[in-house]
Amino acid sequence: MKFTVNRIELLKKLRDVQLAISNKTTIPILTGLKIEAKNDGLKLTGSNSDISIETKLFVEDENAQLVIEETGDIVLQPARFFADIINRLSDDSFTFEVNTQLQASITSANSFFTINALDASSYPYLPEIDTTDSFTLSVRLLKRVIEQTVIAVSKHESRPILTGVNFSIHEGKLKAVATDSHRLSQRIIPVNVPEDLTFQIVIPGNSLLELSKILTDDIEEVNVALAENQILFTTEDTYFYSRLLEGKYPQTDQLIPEESSTQLTLNVQTLKGAVGRTSLLSHAGKNNVVKLSVTDDHIQLTSNSPEVGFVEEDVPSKSIAGDEVEISFNPDYLRDALNTFESGEVTLKLISTLRPFVIVPAESENNYDFVQLITPIRTSAAAR
Amino acid sequence: MKFTVNRIELLKKLRDVQLAISNKTTIPILTGLKIEAKNDGLKLTGSNSDISIETKLFVEDENAQLVIEETGDIVLQPARFFADIINRLSDDSFTFEVNTQLQASITSANSFFTINALDASSYPYLPEIDTTDSFTLSVRLLKRVIEQTVIAVSKHESRPILTGVNFSIHEGKLKAVATDSHRLSQRIIPVNVPEDLTFQIVIPGNSLLELSKILTDDIEEVNVALAENQILFTTEDTYFYSRLLEGKYPQTDQLIPEESSTQLTLNVQTLKGAVGRTSLLSHAGKNNVVKLSVTDDHIQLTSNSPEVGFVEEDVPSKSIAGDEVEISFNPDYLRDALNTFESGEVTLKLISTLRPFVIVPAESENNYDFVQLITPIRTSAAAR
Repeated sequence: MKFTVNRIELLKKLRDVQLAISNKTTIPILTGLKIEAKNDGLKLTGSNSDISIETKLFVEDENAQLVIEETGDIVLQPARFFADIINRLSDDSFTFEVNTQLQASITSANSFFTINALDASSYPYLPEIDTTDSFTLSVRLLKRVIEQTVIAVSKHESRPILTGVNFSIHEGKLKAVATDSHRLSQRIIPVNVPEDLTFQIVIPGNSLLELSKILTDDIEEVNVALAENQILFTTEDTYFYSRLLEGKYPQTDQLIPEESSTQLTLNVQTLKGAVGRTSLLSHAGKNNVVKLSVTDDHIQLTSNSPEVGFVEEDVPSKSIAGDEVEISFNPDYLRDALNTFESGEVTLKLISTLRPFVIVPAESENNYDFVQLITPIRTSAAAR
Repeated sequence: MKFTVNRIELLKKLRDVQLAISNKTTIPILTGLKIEAKNDGLKLTGSNSDISIETKLFVEDENAQLVIEETGDIVLQPARFFADIINRLSDDSFTFEVNTQLQASITSANSFFTINALDASSYPYLPEIDTTDSFTLSVRLLKRVIEQTVIAVSKHESRPILTGVNFSIHEGKLKAVATDSHRLSQRIIPVNVPEDLTFQIVIPGNSLLELSKILTDDIEEVNVALAENQILFTTEDTYFYSRLLEGKYPQTDQLIPEESSTQLTLNVQTLKGAVGRTSLLSHAGKNNVVKLSVTDDHIQLTSNSPEVGFVEEDVPSKSIAGDEVEISFNPDYLRDALNTFESGEVTLKLISTLRPFVIVPAESENNYDFVQLITPIRTSAAAR
């Protein structure tokens, strides 16, 4: 096995594959990076128990300056060490060669490295996924859906199914929902799929975060294919596999209230600023609770921690409609939710002190295609 | 106590004072920030067991927009909490007021904070230092001396005196020396002081690092005054106190060899690159050792870790003179040392495999006003 390649182009690919490589895996060879040299180019593979990433660098890509002198495959371990070496070389390109004793050498300008390597035949095979029934999604839209929902996945393994985002396709619409049982995020988008395509799967939140890193802004579309326990996202040169979470995702539709008795329309940035300042105090105190108080003509956020102090924020609003209400909640949930809105205005819809409230974009406050829901905290003051 | 001030100008001052405030202090009130409002301006004070910083914001400074309505003093605790609040306010200025119950309020635009505070009368007094015998140093030069020597201070408390930099003034020259007994850094600069001024003190390395942060590039000169156990650095608006280390600093002059049998002149950046790459391998192995091999016409850095691999770097040089030699050392010491040189060329002067070698600027290789010394590691290969 022997090839010469431009180190910057290889580093870009390495960065993608490394997202799937962890030192915490129970299968030792998975701490390594698999490199295959074929006649048409290089294939790099990284994998852990949740995701696998395969990416290719083609001989025909002129920037890669790739010359395959001898085909073959090898596993380099740890993967990070190889990437660090390539990153530090002084020349633009390097030559990589593996001898019969499984020693890989890297030669570039005045540098000569030899690193121990592993036989690639013991590296696990990636699942075969049939891509005949695949469909295509806009990368920009998929990344936005991930951003808007992944904030609400549970960080705890007590109910593993809640650590994922529930994706379903039905009647040409993709619905993504996540909830950790304290808050819920839902986004619905139209997708260009056959009318009769219907499925429901749960993708681990961490897989979606890594997928978002791979899907850079220069990529327009991603192809999606499903197998029983796996999903495969494919772009021009990269394959991203994720396992799916098994189990039944809870019904969430009935959790989102349709009616409301108080409606507030506010500028996102203004509300974010007020929440940020209020939570400085709630974070310093023992309980992380902030109270929203709505009167006829006035919105106020307050937090009180006797051991630290008190904060009161008057929040300018565009409109206040409906009943007066007081509601207490974890301000971090509101901050996370507000971060998923574009700048502009949001509408908060509240029912009462002890019922969840929702945040929707002000311009589409009635269609609920995008909704963030937050469950209140029952406090002694709120129960009064 | 009541004042109104521009929050950005106050934040700049807060950032300086916070360098001296630690949560790890054994004196609880020192986790706080002392604020004094006087007729001519505000004074902020922070202190820990090593350093104290006092800084002033003057009423006459137009940018400060400072209006003192009522004088007084208070301690805010923790200091970081106050800084976080000021940092997040939406308006340019805020009003600070303390009531008779020791509650401090911060009012700005739509925000109103009340934070618990402490009586300033229990805050310790800073030492009085007589500044009649003080002298002046160029900030640029002092910062450079600190950078060039502080790398060699010891990180271990087994010999506390070695955790500081030894400064002495004699015959109009300032000499700074640090050593952790594995390496040594020495810098000598001419200073504009009375001919008969002579002293020798040891300043903690950490104090010098914090001092460097305070001394920003817009400050030209700093005034230095000494007391028995303290040193005071004064700029226009800031007082920086550090304790001095007690004890006898070892004699170091005889540690620096004057003769050498091998002299290498190399480009700093080239050598840095080669050391960086070589140490990727030495860091991954069990022993962090790199070997420098010099032959008639060739300089090589190598590192060998059987469990990881092998690296060989040919280092282009400007000149090689003297005997062939092989010497092994910790590459991190060489990296740290090289980082203290401006770009350009350095000269390495070696005696033998088991004797310390020195690095000096190539253009002043004979005066030893600036010298980095590294002690070799005795390896089985080196002892052969």
